[in-house]
Amino acid sequence: MTREEVTALILTARIRKKLSWAKLAETVGHSKEWSTAALLGQMTLTEAQASAIGKLLDLPGDAVAQLQVVPYKGSLPTAVPTDPLIYRFYELISVYGTTFKELIHEEFGDGIMSAIDFKMDLQREPNEAGDRVRITMSGKFLPYKTY
Amino acid sequence: MTREEVTALILTARIRKKLSWAKLAETVGHSKEWSTAALLGQMTLTEAQASAIGKLLDLPGDAVAQLQVVPYKGSLPTAVPTDPLIYRFYELISVYGTTFKELIHEEFGDGIMSAIDFKMDLQREPNEAGDRVRITMSGKFLPYKTY
Amino acid sequence: MTREEVTALILTARIRKKLSWAKLAETVGHSKEWSTAALLGQMTLTEAQASAIGKLLDLPGDAVAQLQVVPYKGSLPTAVPTDPLIYRFYELISVYGTTFKELIHEEFGDGIMSAIDFKMDLQREPNEAGDRVRITMSGKFLPYKTY
Amino acid sequence: MTREEVTALILTARIRKKLSWAKLAETVGHSKEWSTAALLGQMTLTEAQASAIGKLLDLPGDAVAQLQVVPYKGSLPTAVPTDPLIYRFYELISVYGTTFKELIHEEFGDGIMSAIDFKMDLQREPNEAGDRVRITMSGKFLPYKTY
Amino acid sequence: MTREEVTALILTARIRKKLSWAKLAETVGHSKEWSTAALLGQMTLTEAQASAIGKLLDLPGDAVAQLQVVPYKGSLPTAVPTDPLIYRFYELISVYGTTFKELIHEEFGDGIMSAIDFKMDLQREPNEAGDRVRITMSGKFLPYKTY
Amino acid sequence: MTREEVTALILTARIRKKLSWAKLAETVGHSKEWSTAALLGQMTLTEAQASAIGKLLDLPGDAVAQLQVVPYKGSLPTAVPTDPLIYRFYELISVYGTTFKELIHEEFGDGIMSAIDFKMDLQREPNEAGDRVRITMSGKFLPYKTY
Amino acid sequence: MTREEVTALILTARIRKKLSWAKLAETVGHSKEWSTAALLGQMTLTEAQASAIGKLLDLPGDAVAQLQVVPYKGSLPTAVPTDPLIYRFYELISVYGTTFKELIHEEFGDGIMSAIDFKMDLQREPNEAGDRVRITMSGKFLPYKTY
Amino acid sequence: MTREEVTALILTARIRKKLSWAKLAETVGHSKEWSTAALLGQMTLTEAQASAIGKLLDLPGDAVAQLQVVPYKGSLPTAVPTDPLIYRFYELISVYGTTFKELIHEEFGDGIMSAIDFKMDLQREPNEAGDRVRITMSGKFLPYKTY
Amino acid sequence: MTREEVTALILTARIRKKLSWAKLAETVGHSKEWSTAALLGQMTLTEAQASAIGKLLDLPGDAVAQLQVVPYKGSLPTAVPTDPLIYRFYELISVYGTTFKELIHEEFGDGIMSAIDFKMDLQREPNEAGDRVRITMSGKFLPYKTY
Amino acid sequence: MTREEVTALILTARIRKKLSWAKLAETVGHSKEWSTAALLGQMTLTEAQASAIGKLLDLPGDAVAQLQVVPYKGSLPTAVPTDPLIYRFYELISVYGTTFKELIHEEFGDGIMSAIDFKMDLQREPNEAGDRVRITMSGKFLPYKTY
Repeated sequence: MTREEVTALILTARIRKKLSWAKLAETVGHSKEWSTAALLGQMTLTEAQASAIGKLLDLPGDAVAQLQVVPYKGSLPTAVPTDPLIYRFYELISVYGTTFKELIHEEFGDGIMSAIDFKMDLQREPNEAGDRVRITMSGKFLPYKTY
Repeated sequence: MTREEVTALILTARIRKKLSWAKLAETVGHSKEWSTAALLGQMTLTEAQASAIGKLLDLPGDAVAQLQVVPYKGSLPTAVPTDPLIYRFYELISVYGTTFKELIHEEFGDGIMSAIDFKMDLQREPNEAGDRVRITMSGKFLPYKTY
Repeated sequence: MTREEVTALILTARIRKKLSWAKLAETVGHSKEWSTAALLGQMTLTEAQASAIGKLLDLPGDAVAQLQVVPYKGSLPTAVPTDPLIYRFYELISVYGTTFKELIHEEFGDGIMSAIDFKMDLQREPNEAGDRVRITMSGKFLPYKTY
Repeated sequence: MTREEVTALILTARIRKKLSWAKLAETVGHSKEWSTAALLGQMTLTEAQASAIGKLLDLPGDAVAQLQVVPYKGSLPTAVPTDPLIYRFYELISVYGTTFKELIHEEFGDGIMSAIDFKMDLQREPNEAGDRVRITMSGKFLPYKTY
Repeated sequence: MTREEVTALILTARIRKKLSWAKLAETVGHSKEWSTAALLGQMTLTEAQASAIGKLLDLPGDAVAQLQVVPYKGSLPTAVPTDPLIYRFYELISVYGTTFKELIHEEFGDGIMSAIDFKMDLQREPNEAGDRVRITMSGKFLPYKTY
Repeated sequence: MTREEVTALILTARIRKKLSWAKLAETVGHSKEWSTAALLGQMTLTEAQASAIGKLLDLPGDAVAQLQVVPYKGSLPTAVPTDPLIYRFYELISVYGTTFKELIHEEFGDGIMSAIDFKMDLQREPNEAGDRVRITMSGKFLPYKTY
Repeated sequence: MTREEVTALILTARIRKKLSWAKLAETVGHSKEWSTAALLGQMTLTEAQASAIGKLLDLPGDAVAQLQVVPYKGSLPTAVPTDPLIYRFYELISVYGTTFKELIHEEFGDGIMSAIDFKMDLQREPNEAGDRVRITMSGKFLPYKTY
Repeated sequence: MTREEVTALILTARIRKKLSWAKLAETVGHSKEWSTAALLGQMTLTEAQASAIGKLLDLPGDAVAQLQVVPYKGSLPTAVPTDPLIYRFYELISVYGTTFKELIHEEFGDGIMSAIDFKMDLQREPNEAGDRVRITMSGKFLPYKTY
Repeated sequence: MTREEVTALILTARIRKKLSWAKLAETVGHSKEWSTAALLGQMTLTEAQASAIGKLLDLPGDAVAQLQVVPYKGSLPTAVPTDPLIYRFYELISVYGTTFKELIHEEFGDGIMSAIDFKMDLQREPNEAGDRVRITMSGKFLPYKTY
Repeated sequence: MTREEVTALILTARIRKKLSWAKLAETVGHSKEWSTAALLGQMTLTEAQASAIGKLLDLPGDAVAQLQVVPYKGSLPTAVPTDPLIYRFYELISVYGTTFKELIHEEFGDGIMSAIDFKMDLQREPNEAGDRVRITMSGKFLPYKTY
């Protein structure tokens, strides 16, 4: 049983049992952002977390084992995503990528924002002209070392 | 003179004159995020903004005209970026793309976060374990219409 | 059961039962354009719509559940379509893409035509020299925000 | 002088002389849709049309000659467009491509909508919730021949 | 049962029953060129044709139904074909593509040769220095319309 | 001076001097199909042919030399052509590629149609329903050798 | 049963029965180079050869039939091979491709080395500094025809 | 001056001075195969060799210097070559790649044929049915090391 | 049973039996680096090694046979890896590739570092600022031969 | 003046002045690995370092300025490198990528080896069977954070 098959099992079980991602995150014990990524096959669960989720969703033992393995990450089927919601994020990089680069270098010097020591928060932002999606990302700045 | 050549001129002039992007944004009259994107060839300036920047950076008349034309957007030379700073954002989409999708749909239903009615704020977040890059994005949620 | 498998089930059942897309759209309760896209795996049905279609086409319970999930959109197997009918639309963008861009910007300024707040109508246009396909698209103009 | 260089000349001259595409179309003597496509390097002008445009925009003789040559068509630098406005049209094909196919075949049988015997009209559609872009395409249906 | 699976069934049955494509074309009632394309999943059969082929090759009912559906066309697994016989045709376009373009435009003006209102004939051409493959293609010229 | 630059020179000179490809072929002394391909950078001219063309089109000495060099063949800028006329030929291979393969193997056994020992003829075919392009290709059949 | 499945069957049976390619070639009755290519799905066997191999490897009847069909050739999963042994041959073309071209044209004029009327011999070449692989290729030169 | 520009200079000078590759190889002092590869930008010349070639072809000093630099190797503009002569070698790998692999492993075990400790000889092979190109490659076998 | 299926079996059995790669390497009798690569489908085991691993992990006989076959190497699903850990190595080549090249050529002249006569050692390097990964690679230098 | 042009200037000046990378590194004041990467356009110099290099190599003022700008990193022209030396490193990732992943996760848990907080040392390793290239990489391990 591959991790992709475990992800498919989780998606189906969640629909059948009418559970929200927020509810699953409670069982995992972390934020809804991290927990959803983990259950979609991008992060590694501890034995306790995997068992709890397995019980909640009636997963077979093999699936519970796979959830504890470090997965081969990457959740999208093509280099340029076709799904409109996900594409908009790709478009932001295409349009703002060099802007991110210039402003981060102006503030911090040469280096990167970590995508590993990283956390994210996704909220609904009420607004009269139509509610907005607010995403806050926070990643450690890592300077290039000279040696 | 193409827009790419105007962007190159701006980058060179900014170095020569030792001006920060924040300073250029003041002349444009918008946030540093929007203004940097505009000067890197992704947004359209008004005649007044273009003239002000032209004067500040000693740009030729053709360049000032080009800054008022709606550009063919897209700031990166390859579909998968090679620059490490920009790649980390691409990696976030690769890893978290399906997470963005599930959580936004759970909160809002089927639709997207606009990349057009969109704003962004980039800040240094002081932290003992090493300062962090904090990026806050806010985009209008646009629901799919049925008809 | 993946959404692709549900789409395949619908295509087969529709042939077996000799139902037109227009007839299926009646059951869904929306236009034939939106309904066909939904049944081909690109839109999300409500519980009532999914049940009605499930009954009409004898779909299993899992399939009815999947029709209510927001799908990963994108209906084509390759970036450049090989099917001649679909390729002609791709060719129109290849040939007329910059024309769309210039004329929309001339009329509206910098921004886009929404592909989300969007509707479409497809009709046969009788013509002595051979009938024509008439497609009318209407999408909300979304201006780029400055901030 | 290549056709791409002629297109660049036209774009620059149009900005310098503050002429709209509608005005240039008047000089060409066809619709704004066809004329813009032609001046962006996708269609072939007659000698009279090329001379009129050349006079209006002060183009050199070589450019006027090039406008009369059948161009190698295709106006975009990449197979998947990066410009957000043009991408939205590509997204429509990605999402609705199989819908176009099913509905046209249901109405007409096996065949295609011509992208050659084709015309298009682009209009602003006033709307209280925000004006809309209305595009009407009309292409001859061409049935596959058996033999 | 997908159309690809029907094509595979036909290929296997044809071998088992030692039938030539010419013989199958007789049953279809069209030329061997059109009939072979249809049976390889590129054209649509009528109910009568599909039934006749189904009887001849002992196809199941689902396969007979699928033969009457307009297929998603495109018979090759990669954009650049790897099979040497098919590659030679691709090479002809790579080498002679601009020649086709110049000579057709010289004779007919701007437009295309239809690949829909099209027929083809493939013959053995006896020759002392080694027999030759002779392919005659005939497609309607479609001029670009101005409007 | 590269061969591409020589091709560009020939295209420009031909327009300026209002010469048809048929006329240039007369000077070369071969069919219009072979001669056009040669002048578009796909074949090699003899010293006599190159000099004659050089004189007719006022080409510089370097260009005349380059016409005698065996060129790196391939006349198209992308693997999948964007020009509609040339794309139609690519589409024919995409749709009919496996048909070519089956019918040639049925007639000749395993092998290919040569694209080197090959000739081609392109004619206007008058037709009441609209004139047609007729292309006749003739290539030597080359059987796979066993050893 | 596809040809790929037949190839997989042959590979497995060969291991189980501990037969060398040289031994299988003896049964086929041709060189080890041609026979291995054929059994790996790139060439067509006669009925007698297919039956002999089928008996030797206990292949089912369908597999024996498939071995007599002209296969869709091309034995590698990606355009640039990832296997180091096969990549080295690709690298030789990348580095020496233009050298092959210049030296063959210098010796023979414009044309190609046939990959169809072609034979190959692969030998171990003893050498004190380490044995070497010696590959001798011999392909008929095919000159470009003028017409 | 880049190495590509030096290669172009050499190609042009060789034509102008009517020198064969064999003659240039004599000046370099190695085989025609190695020398041609070097002059086409794939190998590194010694100072003496570079000076001799520079004198023979009247190259500027910068070009003579560049010939002594280890070049970034790879002589082809696309991953799949479009030139028919070079493509045939690519086709041989596509068709015979797995055959090379099986036969070399059968003879030598796991490892590769070196493309570095490698030599090649290209000869005309007279033949009544048409002369043939004979290429003999010899590369050291390098076994995978265990550790 | 393909080698990919054997790799999947090994991965699953290792989890179920809670065995480390170091432990598996002990059974193989080589370093943990080589052994892990072999068990992930990149190297060839001897009969004794394959049997020992088969016994330890309860693999079926077919799997034990497959482990002794030279595999088609290449362990990643895409040309640019999506997994962040593996991508970092790709990024090192993207950023440092030309540095590797210049420094190796400065030290050794024209040639390569072998990836076949190669060994590697991967260690944890304790460090107060956070432990580090230390990888030492050692590959034989292979000079380009002249001939 | 772009950074690529500065890199070209440095490469040419280094040859003309016969300076080793080790010598240039002395002027920069860092290791030869970091300094070479920086001078090849991948790292950012301080004002003092840029001036020192500018004086040593007679670079114009614009080039000295550009060396202080954070560059768009990525030193290779294609996603899969064609140069044999650099390709071998890509091959190591293709073959050993999943091995790196498993062994690092076994030692450290889920996370990556930093390519930013990273240093490298490249040495000649004398060896009777032929000298070897020894590369030692050391990168900080960064664990995935839960939140």
